[in-house]
Amino acid sequence: MTRRGALIVVSGPSGVGKDSVLKAFMPGRRDIMLSISATTRPPRVNEIDGEHYHFISQDAFKDMIAKDEMLEYAEYAGNYYGTPRQWVEENLRRGMHVILEIELVGALKIRALMPEAVFVFLMPPSLSTLRDRLIGRGTETPSSISARMEAAKKEILQASAYDYIIVNHTLPDSCEKLSAIIGAAAQRASHLKDIIQEVTKDA
Amino acid sequence: MTRRGALIVVSGPSGVGKDSVLKAFMPGRRDIMLSISATTRPPRVNEIDGEHYHFISQDAFKDMIAKDEMLEYAEYAGNYYGTPRQWVEENLRRGMHVILEIELVGALKIRALMPEAVFVFLMPPSLSTLRDRLIGRGTETPSSISARMEAAKKEILQASAYDYIIVNHTLPDSCEKLSAIIGAAAQRASHLKDIIQEVTKDA
Repeated sequence: MTRRGALIVVSGPSGVGKDSVLKAFMPGRRDIMLSISATTRPPRVNEIDGEHYHFISQDAFKDMIAKDEMLEYAEYAGNYYGTPRQWVEENLRRGMHVILEIELVGALKIRALMPEAVFVFLMPPSLSTLRDRLIGRGTETPSSISARMEAAKKEILQASAYDYIIVNHTLPDSCEKLSAIIGAAAQRASHLKDIIQEVTKDA
Repeated sequence: MTRRGALIVVSGPSGVGKDSVLKAFMPGRRDIMLSISATTRPPRVNEIDGEHYHFISQDAFKDMIAKDEMLEYAEYAGNYYGTPRQWVEENLRRGMHVILEIELVGALKIRALMPEAVFVFLMPPSLSTLRDRLIGRGTETPSSISARMEAAKKEILQASAYDYIIVNHTLPDSCEKLSAIIGAAAQRASHLKDIIQEVTKDA
Protein backbone atom coordinates (compact mmCIF):
# COMPACT_ATOMS: atom_id res chain seq x y z
CA MET A 1 0.00 0.00 0.00
CA THR A 2 1.26 3.46 -0.83
CA ARG A 3 0.91 5.85 2.06
CA ARG A 4 -0.41 9.30 1.15
CA GLY A 5 2.24 12.03 1.11
CA ALA A 6 2.19 15.09 3.33
CA LEU A 7 1.11 18.50 2.06
CA ILE A 8 3.50 21.23 3.21
CA VAL A 9 2.51 24.88 2.83
CA VAL A 10 5.39 27.37 2.93
CA SER A 11 4.61 31.07 3.35
CA GLY A 12 6.48 34.15 4.39
CA PRO A 13 6.78 37.80 3.50
CA SER A 14 7.99 38.89 0.10
CA GLY A 15 11.80 39.01 0.14
CA VAL A 16 12.29 36.56 3.02
CA GLY A 17 13.89 34.03 0.67
CA LYS A 18 11.21 31.38 0.05
CA ASP A 19 12.40 30.78 -3.52
CA SER A 20 16.06 30.58 -2.49
CA VAL A 21 15.36 28.14 0.32
CA LEU A 22 13.22 25.88 -1.87
CA LYS A 23 15.72 26.06 -4.72
CA ALA A 24 18.48 24.94 -2.34
CA PHE A 25 16.24 22.35 -0.71
CA MET A 26 14.66 20.48 -3.61
CA PRO A 27 17.61 18.95 -5.49
CA GLY A 28 18.05 15.30 -4.50
CA ARG A 29 14.69 15.11 -2.72
CA ARG A 30 12.92 12.59 -4.93
CA ASP A 31 10.22 12.13 -2.25
CA ILE A 32 9.09 15.76 -2.56
CA MET A 33 7.39 17.73 -5.36
CA LEU A 34 7.07 21.49 -5.59
CA SER A 35 3.66 22.62 -6.78
CA ILE A 36 3.64 25.07 -9.68
CA SER A 37 0.97 27.76 -9.56
CA ALA A 38 -1.19 28.74 -12.51
CA THR A 39 -1.46 32.41 -13.43
CA THR A 40 -3.10 34.60 -16.03
CA ARG A 41 -0.37 37.22 -15.94
CA PRO A 42 2.00 37.21 -18.92
CA PRO A 43 5.39 35.56 -18.41
CA ARG A 44 8.31 37.86 -17.55
CA VAL A 45 11.60 37.59 -19.39
CA ASN A 46 13.31 34.29 -18.40
CA GLU A 47 10.11 32.79 -17.00
CA ILE A 48 9.37 29.35 -18.41
CA ASP A 49 5.86 27.92 -18.74
CA GLY A 50 5.45 24.87 -16.51
CA GLU A 51 8.55 25.74 -14.51
CA HIS A 52 7.92 29.13 -12.90
CA TYR A 53 4.16 29.12 -13.52
CA HIS A 54 1.57 27.49 -15.69
CA PHE A 55 0.68 30.48 -17.85
CA ILE A 56 -2.97 30.17 -18.86
CA SER A 57 -5.67 32.44 -20.24
CA GLN A 58 -8.29 34.26 -18.16
CA ASP A 59 -10.97 32.05 -19.73
CA ALA A 60 -9.12 28.86 -18.91
CA PHE A 61 -8.53 30.05 -15.32
CA LYS A 62 -12.18 31.02 -14.82
CA ASP A 63 -13.24 27.68 -16.23
CA MET A 64 -11.03 25.88 -13.68
CA ILE A 65 -12.52 27.97 -10.85
CA ALA A 66 -16.03 27.11 -12.04
CA LYS A 67 -15.17 23.39 -12.08
CA ASP A 68 -13.64 23.63 -8.57
CA GLU A 69 -10.28 22.68 -10.02
CA MET A 70 -8.34 25.30 -8.05
CA LEU A 71 -7.37 24.37 -4.50
CA GLU A 72 -7.08 28.09 -3.79
CA TYR A 73 -6.76 31.16 -5.94
CA ALA A 74 -6.50 34.91 -5.60
CA GLU A 75 -6.59 37.98 -7.81
CA TYR A 76 -3.85 40.65 -7.74
CA ALA A 77 -3.71 43.67 -9.98
CA GLY A 78 -6.18 42.13 -12.42
CA ASN A 79 -4.38 38.78 -12.70
CA TYR A 80 -5.33 35.43 -11.21
CA TYR A 81 -2.95 33.15 -9.34
CA GLY A 82 -3.97 29.71 -8.14
CA THR A 83 -3.04 26.12 -7.26
CA PRO A 84 -4.39 23.45 -9.61
CA ARG A 85 -5.98 20.81 -7.39
CA GLN A 86 -5.61 17.69 -9.53
CA TRP A 87 -1.81 17.70 -9.72
CA VAL A 88 -1.52 18.14 -5.94
CA GLU A 89 -4.03 15.35 -5.24
CA GLU A 90 -2.42 12.92 -7.67
CA ASN A 91 1.03 13.39 -6.19
CA LEU A 92 -0.16 13.09 -2.60
CA ARG A 93 -2.04 9.92 -3.55
CA ARG A 94 1.07 8.33 -5.03
CA GLY A 95 2.95 9.04 -1.80
CA MET A 96 4.88 12.16 -2.73
CA HIS A 97 5.15 15.02 -0.26
CA VAL A 98 3.98 18.19 -1.97
CA ILE A 99 5.20 21.70 -1.12
CA LEU A 100 3.03 24.69 -1.92
CA GLU A 101 4.75 28.06 -1.81
CA ILE A 102 1.86 30.36 -1.23
CA GLU A 103 0.95 33.67 0.41
CA LEU A 104 -0.89 34.07 3.69
CA VAL A 105 -4.47 34.35 2.39
CA GLY A 106 -4.08 31.27 0.20
CA ALA A 107 -2.48 29.39 3.10
CA LEU A 108 -5.42 30.14 5.38
CA LYS A 109 -7.82 28.89 2.67
CA ILE A 110 -5.88 25.63 2.45
CA ARG A 111 -5.86 25.37 6.25
CA ALA A 112 -9.67 25.32 6.16
CA LEU A 113 -9.87 22.83 3.25
CA MET A 114 -7.05 20.47 4.25
CA PRO A 115 -6.48 20.63 8.01
CA GLU A 116 -3.94 17.78 7.74
CA ALA A 117 -1.57 20.05 5.78
CA VAL A 118 1.53 21.31 7.60
CA PHE A 119 2.02 25.09 7.65
CA VAL A 120 5.51 26.58 7.71
CA PHE A 121 6.20 30.29 8.03
CA LEU A 122 9.59 31.49 6.81
CA MET A 123 10.61 34.42 8.99
CA PRO A 124 13.30 37.04 8.37
CA PRO A 125 15.87 37.34 11.20
CA SER A 126 14.71 40.95 11.54
CA LEU A 127 12.71 43.55 9.61
CA SER A 128 15.91 45.40 8.77
CA THR A 129 17.34 42.22 7.18
CA LEU A 130 14.17 41.96 5.13
CA ARG A 131 14.46 45.58 4.01
CA ASP A 132 18.10 45.02 3.03
CA ARG A 133 17.12 41.98 0.97
CA LEU A 134 14.35 43.87 -0.81
CA ILE A 135 16.74 46.73 -1.58
CA GLY A 136 19.36 44.18 -2.70
CA ARG A 137 17.01 42.81 -5.35
CA GLY A 138 17.43 46.07 -7.21
CA THR A 139 13.95 45.72 -8.72
CA GLU A 140 11.89 47.56 -6.10
CA THR A 141 11.16 51.26 -5.94
CA PRO A 142 11.38 52.98 -2.53
CA SER A 143 7.58 53.14 -2.36
CA SER A 144 7.15 49.47 -3.27
CA ILE A 145 9.71 48.65 -0.55
CA SER A 146 7.70 50.51 2.10
CA ALA A 147 4.51 48.84 0.90
CA ARG A 148 6.17 45.41 1.11
CA MET A 149 7.57 46.20 4.58
CA GLU A 150 4.11 47.16 5.82
CA ALA A 151 2.65 43.97 4.36
CA ALA A 152 5.51 41.92 5.84
CA LYS A 153 4.87 43.24 9.33
CA LYS A 154 1.19 42.31 9.09
CA GLU A 155 2.04 38.82 7.85
CA ILE A 156 4.63 38.22 10.54
CA LEU A 157 2.07 39.11 13.21
CA GLN A 158 -0.01 36.19 11.89
CA ALA A 159 2.84 33.67 11.99
CA SER A 160 1.45 32.05 15.14
CA ALA A 161 -1.41 30.72 12.98
CA TYR A 162 1.19 28.45 11.34
CA ASP A 163 2.40 25.12 12.71
CA TYR A 164 6.09 25.94 12.35
CA ILE A 165 8.36 28.96 12.09
CA ILE A 166 11.77 28.85 10.45
CA VAL A 167 13.92 31.94 10.90
CA ASN A 168 15.85 32.18 7.65
CA HIS A 169 19.36 32.84 8.96
CA THR A 170 21.25 30.75 6.38
CA LEU A 171 20.13 28.48 3.54
CA PRO A 172 21.68 25.25 4.94
CA ASP A 173 20.12 25.85 8.36
CA SER A 174 16.67 26.61 6.88
CA CYS A 175 16.91 23.55 4.60
CA GLU A 176 17.79 21.32 7.55
CA LYS A 177 14.84 22.62 9.55
CA LEU A 178 12.45 22.21 6.62
CA SER A 179 13.72 18.66 6.16
CA ALA A 180 13.04 17.88 9.83
CA ILE A 181 9.53 19.32 9.59
CA ILE A 182 8.70 17.22 6.52
CA GLY A 183 10.31 14.14 8.08
CA ALA A 184 8.22 14.59 11.21
CA ALA A 185 5.05 15.22 9.15
CA ALA A 186 5.46 11.79 7.60
CA GLN A 187 5.58 10.18 11.07
CA ARG A 188 2.44 11.80 12.47
CA ALA A 189 0.22 9.24 14.18
CA SER A 190 -2.78 10.79 12.42
CA HIS A 191 -1.00 10.00 9.16
CA LEU A 192 -0.11 6.41 10.09
CA LYS A 193 -3.32 5.12 11.66
CA ASP A 194 -3.43 2.14 9.28
CA ILE A 195 -0.13 0.89 10.79
CA ILE A 196 -1.88 0.17 14.08
CA GLN A 197 -4.33 -2.17 12.31
CA GLU A 198 -1.57 -3.73 10.20
CA VAL A 199 0.63 -4.52 13.18
CA THR A 200 -2.08 -5.82 15.51
CA LYS A 201 -3.84 -8.02 12.97
CA ASP A 202 -0.76 -10.24 12.54
CA ALA A 203 -0.91 -11.76 16.06
CA MET B 1 17.61 34.72 25.71
CA THR B 2 17.69 30.96 26.04
CA ARG B 3 14.71 29.31 24.41
CA ARG B 4 13.12 26.51 26.43
CA GLY B 5 13.91 23.01 25.17
CA ALA B 6 11.31 20.54 23.95
CA LEU B 7 10.14 17.63 26.09
CA ILE B 8 10.00 14.39 24.08
CA VAL B 9 8.23 11.36 25.53
CA VAL B 10 9.19 8.02 23.96
CA SER B 11 7.02 4.97 24.66
CA GLY B 12 6.47 1.60 23.12
CA PRO B 13 5.89 -1.99 24.11
CA SER B 14 8.48 -3.94 26.06
CA GLY B 15 10.97 -5.45 23.60
CA VAL B 16 10.36 -2.94 20.77
CA GLY B 17 13.88 -1.56 21.14
CA LYS B 18 13.46 1.76 22.97
CA ASP B 19 16.78 1.37 24.81
CA SER B 20 18.64 0.33 21.64
CA VAL B 21 17.26 3.25 19.63
CA LEU B 22 18.08 5.80 22.33
CA LYS B 23 21.53 4.30 22.90
CA ALA B 24 22.23 4.65 19.17
CA PHE B 25 20.65 8.09 19.01
CA MET B 26 22.15 9.98 21.94
CA PRO B 27 25.92 10.03 21.25
CA GLY B 28 26.90 13.34 19.70
CA ARG B 29 23.57 15.01 20.48
CA ARG B 30 24.75 17.66 22.91
CA ASP B 31 21.41 19.46 22.57
CA ILE B 32 19.49 16.52 24.06
CA MET B 33 19.42 14.95 27.53
CA LEU B 34 17.96 11.59 28.44
CA SER B 35 16.03 11.66 31.70
CA ILE B 36 16.96 8.99 34.24
CA SER B 37 14.09 7.54 36.25
CA ALA B 38 14.16 7.00 39.98
CA THR B 39 13.20 3.60 41.37
CA THR B 40 12.95 1.83 44.68
CA ARG B 41 13.77 -1.58 43.23
CA PRO B 42 17.27 -2.88 43.95
CA PRO B 43 19.83 -2.53 41.15
CA ARG B 44 20.39 -5.60 38.96
CA VAL B 45 23.90 -6.83 38.19
CA ASN B 46 25.63 -4.29 35.89
CA GLU B 47 23.13 -1.53 36.67
CA ILE B 48 24.82 1.68 37.72
CA ASP B 49 23.19 4.24 40.03
CA GLY B 50 22.63 7.51 38.19
CA GLU B 51 23.12 5.85 34.80
CA HIS B 52 20.38 3.22 34.48
CA TYR B 53 18.28 4.53 37.35
CA HIS B 54 18.53 6.67 40.43
CA PHE B 55 18.19 3.95 43.05
CA ILE B 56 16.51 5.45 46.11
CA SER B 57 14.72 4.17 49.21
CA GLN B 58 10.95 3.76 49.56
CA ASP B 59 10.98 6.57 52.16
CA ALA B 60 12.89 8.93 49.89
CA PHE B 61 10.55 8.12 46.99
CA LYS B 62 7.39 8.67 49.08
CA ASP B 63 8.84 11.91 50.36
CA MET B 64 9.36 13.11 46.76
CA ILE B 65 5.77 12.15 45.89
CA ALA B 66 4.49 14.07 48.93
CA LYS B 67 6.49 17.16 47.88
CA ASP B 68 5.18 16.87 44.28
CA GLU B 69 8.72 16.30 43.08
CA MET B 70 7.78 13.46 40.72
CA LEU B 71 6.50 14.47 37.30
CA GLU B 72 4.85 11.05 37.10
CA TYR B 73 5.31 7.79 38.96
CA ALA B 74 3.87 4.30 39.04
CA GLU B 75 4.11 1.20 41.19
CA TYR B 76 4.92 -2.24 39.74
CA ALA B 77 5.32 -5.40 41.78
CA GLY B 78 5.78 -3.44 44.98
CA ASN B 79 8.40 -1.05 43.57
CA TYR B 80 8.06 2.59 42.61
CA TYR B 81 9.31 4.09 39.33
CA GLY B 82 9.13 7.79 38.60
CA THR B 83 10.52 10.84 36.83
CA PRO B 84 12.12 13.46 39.09
CA ARG B 85 10.61 16.77 38.06
CA GLN B 86 13.37 19.21 39.01
CA TRP B 87 16.04 17.77 36.71
CA VAL B 88 13.64 17.81 33.74
CA GLU B 89 12.54 21.38 34.44
CA GLU B 90 16.10 22.67 34.91
CA ASN B 91 17.28 21.17 31.64
CA LEU B 92 14.29 22.40 29.64
CA ARG B 93 14.83 25.86 31.13
CA ARG B 94 18.46 25.96 30.02
CA GLY B 95 17.36 25.09 26.47
CA MET B 96 18.12 21.36 26.36
CA HIS B 97 15.65 18.99 24.73
CA VAL B 98 14.78 16.27 27.24
CA ILE B 99 13.76 12.73 26.31
CA LEU B 100 11.70 10.68 28.75
CA GLU B 101 11.54 6.96 28.03
CA ILE B 102 8.37 6.01 29.77
CA GLU B 103 5.49 3.53 29.61
CA LEU B 104 2.01 4.30 28.37
CA VAL B 105 0.32 5.19 31.67
CA GLY B 106 3.14 7.55 32.63
CA ALA B 107 3.05 9.09 29.16
CA LEU B 108 -0.66 9.83 29.44
CA LYS B 109 -0.09 11.48 32.83
CA ILE B 110 2.57 13.72 31.29
CA ARG B 111 0.24 14.50 28.39
CA ALA B 112 -2.25 15.93 30.88
CA LEU B 113 0.41 17.88 32.84
CA MET B 114 2.53 19.15 29.94
CA PRO B 115 0.45 19.33 26.77
CA GLU B 116 3.37 20.96 24.95
CA ALA B 117 5.39 17.72 25.23
CA VAL B 118 5.84 15.68 22.05
CA PHE B 119 4.73 12.03 22.24
CA VAL B 120 6.49 9.38 20.16
CA PHE B 121 5.37 5.76 20.00
CA LEU B 122 7.99 3.24 18.92
CA MET B 123 6.18 0.48 17.06
CA PRO B 124 7.42 -3.00 16.15
CA PRO B 125 7.21 -3.83 12.42
CA SER B 126 4.88 -6.69 13.41
CA LEU B 127 3.83 -8.60 16.51
CA SER B 128 5.82 -11.61 15.36
CA THR B 129 8.98 -9.44 15.18
CA LEU B 130 8.26 -8.32 18.72
CA ARG B 131 7.83 -11.92 19.91
CA ASP B 132 11.11 -12.89 18.23
CA ARG B 133 12.91 -10.02 19.97
CA LEU B 134 11.49 -10.99 23.36
CA ILE B 135 12.53 -14.62 22.81
CA GLY B 136 15.94 -13.44 21.59
CA ARG B 137 16.59 -11.68 24.91
CA GLY B 138 16.84 -15.10 26.49
CA THR B 139 15.63 -13.68 29.82
CA GLU B 140 11.88 -14.21 29.43
CA THR B 141 9.88 -17.33 30.31
CA PRO B 142 7.19 -18.50 27.85
CA SER B 143 4.48 -17.22 30.20
CA SER B 144 6.16 -13.82 30.63
CA ILE B 145 6.42 -13.63 26.83
CA SER B 146 2.69 -14.20 26.38
CA ALA B 147 1.94 -11.66 29.10
CA ARG B 148 4.19 -9.10 27.39
CA MET B 149 2.62 -9.85 24.00
CA GLU B 150 -0.87 -9.27 25.41
CA ALA B 151 0.28 -6.01 27.00
CA ALA B 152 2.00 -4.97 23.75
CA LYS B 153 -1.16 -5.45 21.72
CA LYS B 154 -3.13 -3.27 24.14
CA GLU B 155 -0.47 -0.56 24.04
CA ILE B 156 -0.23 -0.58 20.26
CA LEU B 157 -3.99 -0.07 20.01
CA GLN B 158 -3.46 3.20 21.92
CA ALA B 159 -0.67 4.48 19.67
CA SER B 160 -3.02 6.91 17.94
CA ALA B 161 -3.08 8.88 21.22
CA TYR B 162 0.56 9.78 20.48
CA ASP B 163 1.73 12.57 18.18
CA TYR B 164 4.13 10.42 16.20
CA ILE B 165 4.70 6.77 15.38
CA ILE B 166 8.09 5.36 14.40
CA VAL B 167 8.09 1.79 13.11
CA ASN B 168 11.40 0.41 14.37
CA HIS B 169 12.67 -1.31 11.21
CA THR B 170 16.36 -0.46 11.65
CA LEU B 171 18.28 1.63 14.19
CA PRO B 172 19.61 4.22 11.67
CA ASP B 173 16.14 4.71 10.19
CA SER B 174 14.50 5.09 13.62
CA CYS B 175 17.25 7.49 14.76
CA GLU B 176 16.78 9.63 11.64
CA LYS B 177 13.04 9.81 12.23
CA LEU B 178 13.46 10.67 15.90
CA SER B 179 15.92 13.38 14.92
CA ALA B 180 13.38 14.87 12.49
CA ILE B 181 10.65 14.82 15.14
CA ILE B 182 12.86 16.62 17.68
CA GLY B 183 14.07 19.06 15.02
CA ALA B 184 10.48 19.87 14.09
CA ALA B 185 9.45 20.17 17.75
CA ALA B 186 12.00 22.96 18.18
CA GLN B 187 10.44 24.89 15.26
CA ARG B 188 6.83 24.76 16.44
CA ALA B 189 5.20 28.16 16.21
CA SER B 190 3.73 27.61 19.68
CA HIS B 191 7.32 27.22 20.89
CA LEU B 192 8.65 30.32 19.10
CA LYS B 193 5.96 32.90 19.81
CA ASP B 194 8.52 35.33 21.24
CA ILE B 195 10.22 35.49 17.82
CA ILE B 196 7.20 37.27 16.36
CA GLN B 197 7.56 40.05 18.93
CA GLU B 198 11.33 40.17 18.54
CA VAL B 199 11.20 40.52 14.76
CA THR B 200 8.35 43.03 14.55
CA LYS B 201 9.63 45.38 17.27
CA ASP B 202 12.77 46.21 15.28
CA ALA B 203 10.93 48.12 12.52
